[in-house]
Amino acid sequence: MSRVITLLTDFGTADGYVGEMKGILLSKVPGAVLVDIAHDVAAQDVDGARLALARYWQRFPAGTVHLVIVDPGVGSSRAAIAVESEGRFLVGPDNGVLSPALLHAGARCVEMPVPAAASATFHGRDVFAPAAAALARGAPLDSLGQVCTTPVVRRTPEAVRREDGSIAGVVITVDRFGNAVTNLVTWRGGAVEVNGRRLPLVRTYADVESGEAAALVGSSGLLEVAMRDRSAAAALGLKRGSAVVLHPAS
Amino acid sequence: MSRVITLLTDFGTADGYVGEMKGILLSKVPGAVLVDIAHDVAAQDVDGARLALARYWQRFPAGTVHLVIVDPGVGSSRAAIAVESEGRFLVGPDNGVLSPALLHAGARCVEMPVPAAASATFHGRDVFAPAAAALARGAPLDSLGQVCTTPVVRRTPEAVRREDGSIAGVVITVDRFGNAVTNLVTWRGGAVEVNGRRLPLVRTYADVESGEAAALVGSSGLLEVAMRDRSAAAALGLKRGSAVVLHPAS
Amino acid sequence: MSRVITLLTDFGTADGYVGEMKGILLSKVPGAVLVDIAHDVAAQDVDGARLALARYWQRFPAGTVHLVIVDPGVGSSRAAIAVESEGRFLVGPDNGVLSPALLHAGARCVEMPVPAAASATFHGRDVFAPAAAALARGAPLDSLGQVCTTPVVRRTPEAVRREDGSIAGVVITVDRFGNAVTNLVTWRGGAVEVNGRRLPLVRTYADVESGEAAALVGSSGLLEVAMRDRSAAAALGLKRGSAVVLHPAS
Repeated sequence: MSRVITLLTDFGTADGYVGEMKGILLSKVPGAVLVDIAHDVAAQDVDGARLALARYWQRFPAGTVHLVIVDPGVGSSRAAIAVESEGRFLVGPDNGVLSPALLHAGARCVEMPVPAAASATFHGRDVFAPAAAALARGAPLDSLGQVCTTPVVRRTPEAVRREDGSIAGVVITVDRFGNAVTNLVTWRGGAVEVNGRRLPLVRTYADVESGEAAALVGSSGLLEVAMRDRSAAAALGLKRGSAVVLHPAS
Repeated sequence: MSRVITLLTDFGTADGYVGEMKGILLSKVPGAVLVDIAHDVAAQDVDGARLALARYWQRFPAGTVHLVIVDPGVGSSRAAIAVESEGRFLVGPDNGVLSPALLHAGARCVEMPVPAAASATFHGRDVFAPAAAALARGAPLDSLGQVCTTPVVRRTPEAVRREDGSIAGVVITVDRFGNAVTNLVTWRGGAVEVNGRRLPLVRTYADVESGEAAALVGSSGLLEVAMRDRSAAAALGLKRGSAVVLHPAS
Repeated sequence: MSRVITLLTDFGTADGYVGEMKGILLSKVPGAVLVDIAHDVAAQDVDGARLALARYWQRFPAGTVHLVIVDPGVGSSRAAIAVESEGRFLVGPDNGVLSPALLHAGARCVEMPVPAAASATFHGRDVFAPAAAALARGAPLDSLGQVCTTPVVRRTPEAVRREDGSIAGVVITVDRFGNAVTNLVTWRGGAVEVNGRRLPLVRTYADVESGEAAALVGSSGLLEVAMRDRSAAAALGLKRGSAVVLHPAS
């Protein structure tokens, strides 16, 4: 049986909060394989965590438990949920961060009770880690709580086809290299327009000269705006939500 | 037998120093379970590491070995110590960083010899990692060195009750979210005063409006000064050592 | 059989790219022991990754697979290689980052085909992680590709002896503490000159007063310029490539 437990948080590591969670996980699940995804998600950036989760959650073996804790509403009335989807388990706050798994057909969700003794500021330690441990030990999803029928779902905005045939999209995230990932997809080429500049569509970063901007299909199938050896986001003034237009090849 | 070894350092990771230590640990202890706590403790911040350690060391299973290396005095006459406390082992420099374990009744401590061949600048690799490996393989504490009777201990300053009934405390650390953790505790409510402002005592971050400051009992039982969706430390000018006063409810 | 796989990248962690790779590794190699070296190498800093790799690759047990992905040329004609050296395996781009292993006598190298379906921007996921998984499962090096006879090799520049007997070197990297590591070695002492200042050669940081600069032999045997409790690089204006001169004791 898989006992892999992954951790994605915005806690940073230096304060020891993640250390506390890891200690609890290893105490409750001897032999658990803990896998750090990231702890440097921007503080309270639920959408950033959601987009990262979309990348990795199905790459792990069936039975893996994914802990995802970016939780501005900790201690409030927001629910604590556990999800089973595509053979993987996920645990986190009911704020949309688990949407990539919830949106799959067949996903199941339960709302977990919060123990009276739980800290009002650290459900990661007192609610989510114990739940992840139970799932990693083989507890069925339903044993953790009541069925949750309307979990919060957050979606990446959809690109919009305009009358002139162009597609209006937005930047959904900027990665560490300054590549601006958009919500645009293309199968037939074209040009991408950002801030009044038309960028060619190329295959990879090295297809343009150093310092030149271009668009390309990134590793998740979405169009990215990139600049060789530089940050396209910084150079072109792009951030999450910035407008990007695809002019498909005719 | 547990072979969990945790690592807390201020080395960062990019230079490969932590990688060297991990290689040695896995070479000497096949099957060891290495757990990163943090490597981004502020450089030479012994107190920051001490406070993080206080959070996690007892959360791990009995038999766990905690490596804690924030070591401004490396290569000097400061001792290298190993500690057994509450069934866990700890290894690090004798500069107070291991105080949370040393302060427990029954803690035992040995001072380890430094091999002549050890680098004068990297005891993490040449002294502490080999000691942690020995303990993880089951070596008794006493086999590592001579009893150390007066290890350096650092304590969090105690809050002081004043004549008017208020309690004078200080900020002991600021976490990644900008929450200022203090040395104050309360069981009967009251108000917290920082820089001339009185803050209400609430249960969790979400109990105030975005951008508002409040005090609350954090996950380690200490009063924190927090601001919803913002850094309280930045907004209120708080840092380690800043004065905070508790006015208990009457 | 060892199934240790280490990961060194410049991907950061927050975007989920490393998470994708870890999921693939654990799916393909059940029971694999994943070891993070670093993901915060400066973006595209091939030399920084090369120098970090030099520190740790031989510290790990025989059979370990080292993934090293700092890859500005991803998707271009640069080759993807796998290396066997001193009983360890290494996988990464053919841009010199694997030089520490390639420069050992007996090192063997193969060039791996890039599948047509591989993303042009993420060979870490589609080429390197699958290759590392195959090696960790015991696949022989030769099964991964054709012999690569002239891999790209990058070398640390050699120090130069000058007519007056002094040795002209350079800073090769600056670590997290601001210590400037040089390409100079010494066995008989002397003084080190940087930016017109002569620094004494001491044994460890604590041998000078706080804020004072000195040179010392670092943990890899190279001379470093350090400043107690401060960043020597910041205070003395040193960066990679800065000139440093050793005046050997006479």
